[in-house]
Formats: sequence, structure tokens, C-alpha cells
Amino acid sequence: MVVHTDYLWFNTKQRQEFVRITDQIATIVQKSGVKDGTVLVSAMHITAGVFVNDWETGLIHDFQVWLEELAPAGRDYRHHQTGEDNADAHLKRTVMGHQVMLPITGGALDLGPWEQVFYAEFDGQRKKRVVIKVMGI
Amino acid sequence: MVVHTDYLWFNTKQRQEFVRITDQIATIVQKSGVKDGTVLVSAMHITAGVFVNDWETGLIHDFQVWLEELAPAGRDYRHHQTGEDNADAHLKRTVMGHQVMLPITGGALDLGPWEQVFYAEFDGQRKKRVVIKVMGI
Amino acid sequence: MVVHTDYLWFNTKQRQEFVRITDQIATIVQKSGVKDGTVLVSAMHITAGVFVNDWETGLIHDFQVWLEELAPAGRDYRHHQTGEDNADAHLKRTVMGHQVMLPITGGALDLGPWEQVFYAEFDGQRKKRVVIKVMGI
Repeated sequence: MVVHTDYLWFNTKQRQEFVRITDQIATIVQKSGVKDGTVLVSAMHITAGVFVNDWETGLIHDFQVWLEELAPAGRDYRHHQTGEDNADAHLKRTVMGHQVMLPITGGALDLGPWEQVFYAEFDGQRKKRVVIKVMGI
Repeated sequence: MVVHTDYLWFNTKQRQEFVRITDQIATIVQKSGVKDGTVLVSAMHITAGVFVNDWETGLIHDFQVWLEELAPAGRDYRHHQTGEDNADAHLKRTVMGHQVMLPITGGALDLGPWEQVFYAEFDGQRKKRVVIKVMGI
Repeated sequence: MVVHTDYLWFNTKQRQEFVRITDQIATIVQKSGVKDGTVLVSAMHITAGVFVNDWETGLIHDFQVWLEELAPAGRDYRHHQTGEDNADAHLKRTVMGHQVMLPITGGALDLGPWEQVFYAEFDGQRKKRVVIKVMGI
């Protein structure tokens, strides 16, 4: 059994930004030598997420508009009494999810035709990390 | 260590349909020979989900009404400028989640008394796939 | 390869309560002897969740207020025709998620600086269980 650990670093220009990371994950899987197994991709910061969905600019816009409706910024959140201003980012990342498990078959990511992996930043403009854990044979 | 891969195919009659798949997953786990480990069950299409909840018709109805409120169909989504009409399906599957990890103990799914696994279709009436990856000893 | 299974029991005083469980999970990981791998932490009851976020009282309050808006109690849910009164708990746990996979590196949980694991009870005051499955080398 092989267990391979890696990390990806992000420092987005925008406060909120979705970054496609499918290719980076595929490269890490290849480097691990795992032919059959899974890879965990998990945000290590609690105002960021990781999700699988479509690589289509319009839909990414729809996601961001929708998240603003479900979990608006600028409300009088109690979390802000600590001096923070990012309670909405904690809620938004909860809706999107903060981690995915991707199957590996035949040495490659076993994804459906439109599945793409994204890092979802909701409070960026600073360094943040994602952990990748490949496990298998 | 054993890694066993399988797939389930769906082609629902309704556009939106929740299908209980606990028994199919249990059969695949048995076939894998894994006695102790986990099984990943993950939708390979980005307008479908996989979730664990109650097998009760009323609650399934409540879920569907609730999802329609949170992520309504028929809005002027930007994704629809591509010719698609299913942006709401992408959002709904995000709320429900698109994958679960189920524990295996003593050669069987180690589920709580009411846990049932469902495939959640939000844009059906076509062939779609779920990947199952059993890992363990 | 090591696979180690454990369970945590909860019986909260409040109907809705978020309980920090990071330390209990860390202890189980240590007990397992796994140095490199993952641990699945999954609620076995369908009105409870497990999530990773901030250990800050104000934010926990914000989460609970927000969940009440997204999935209010006291509505005329169809699930209640069975005699139940907890449909909202099923919905709330779906928003928060019911399981997490935590990476293990160097024999310890490989968490970001603010990541804390919580058990989220939405229909408590009775005994409920969480399953923990540690896998690795």
C-alpha cells in the first residue's frame, strides 16, 4: 500500500475566486505511483472549499450569485464581534463543501466526462493551503 | 490491501428522482471480499448527487420541495446562455452532496439504524454513472 | 495496512448542540498506530452531522441562526405525517454535511491552523453514535 502526501498553495488576487485544480491533482496522482485507489483533496483553511462541478464560466458566475443569496456578506454576524469580517465565507464554504475524494483507476483520476475539481476561495488575498492524500496500490 | 472498483448505471424516468442504492452497494462490498475498510460512492455526472438519509416518502418529498426553494429551476441563469437549461440541477446536487464514504466492518456496511444511501438525479432521462471504490483488508 | 474502527457516543442536553470532537479523534488516531493515512468520521444518525470549521462561539451562533433560516423548524413538513417532528433536522444536517475525511501525517491529524472537528446534533437528548475508521500505514 502506498500513501503519498502533497500540498497545493494558493494566494488569490480576488477575495472570492474559483480555481480549477484538476490537472495539478492528476499530476500528483501520477507522481505517487498509485494505480488503484483514492485521493483526498481537502482545504486546510476554514473559509475555503474544494468541490467538483462544471468548468463553465457562466455556471461559476451562477454559483457565486447563488452563494451570495444563501449566505450574504455584510450582515451583522456575531463572529464579527471578534474583529473578523468573514463569517459569510465560513457559511459559503460549508455550502460548497471543503473536500472531495477522487477515485483512481488504471493510474489516473477516474472522473466523469464533465467532472472538474475546483478550489473555492471565499476570503483570499493571502496564502492558503490544500492537502492531498493519495492512497492505494 | 484490496481495492475493488465497480460502477452503477442509472437512466431515470423522471427528470428529478431519488433512487435508494443501499442494497446494490452492500452487494458490491460483499463481492469485493473486503472485511474492514471503506467504500466511496460518487456520482460521475455533475447534475446528480449521492447522499445518506431516511427512506421515507414524505421526507423525500420535503427534500425536493426544499431544494426547489433553495435553488429554483427556471431562473435566468447565465449557464443557460450556453444552451443548457439545468443550472438549478448543478446547484441542487451541491446542496445534497455528490459522494459519500461508507465504513465497512465485519464484511458489511457499518451503517446506523436509519441510514440509507440514495442516488439523487436532478437532470435525468439519460444514462449516468456512479463509481464505487471499495478499499480495505 | 492498518484499519482501526472506533465509535463515539453522544447524548446532548439540548436538542441542537455543536460539540467539538477534535481531541477525541486525535486520541483514536494515536491509538490506531497509523502514521500516514486518513480517518473517516461519520454520523450514524440521519439528524446529526459532522463538520470542520472554526471553534468560535460567535460563529457557532451564526451557523445556527443561518440554518434556522435555510431549513426552519415548525413547518408543515410531509415527514411529520409519520408522527415525527424533526424534518428540519434532516435538512440542517444535509447543509452541514454528515462526515469528514481527515488526513493523518507523521502519526497525527494533518489539520490547518484553525480546523476543528465538530459533531452537530439537530435532534438530540437521546443516545447517538459516530463511527471512526482509521486507515493507513
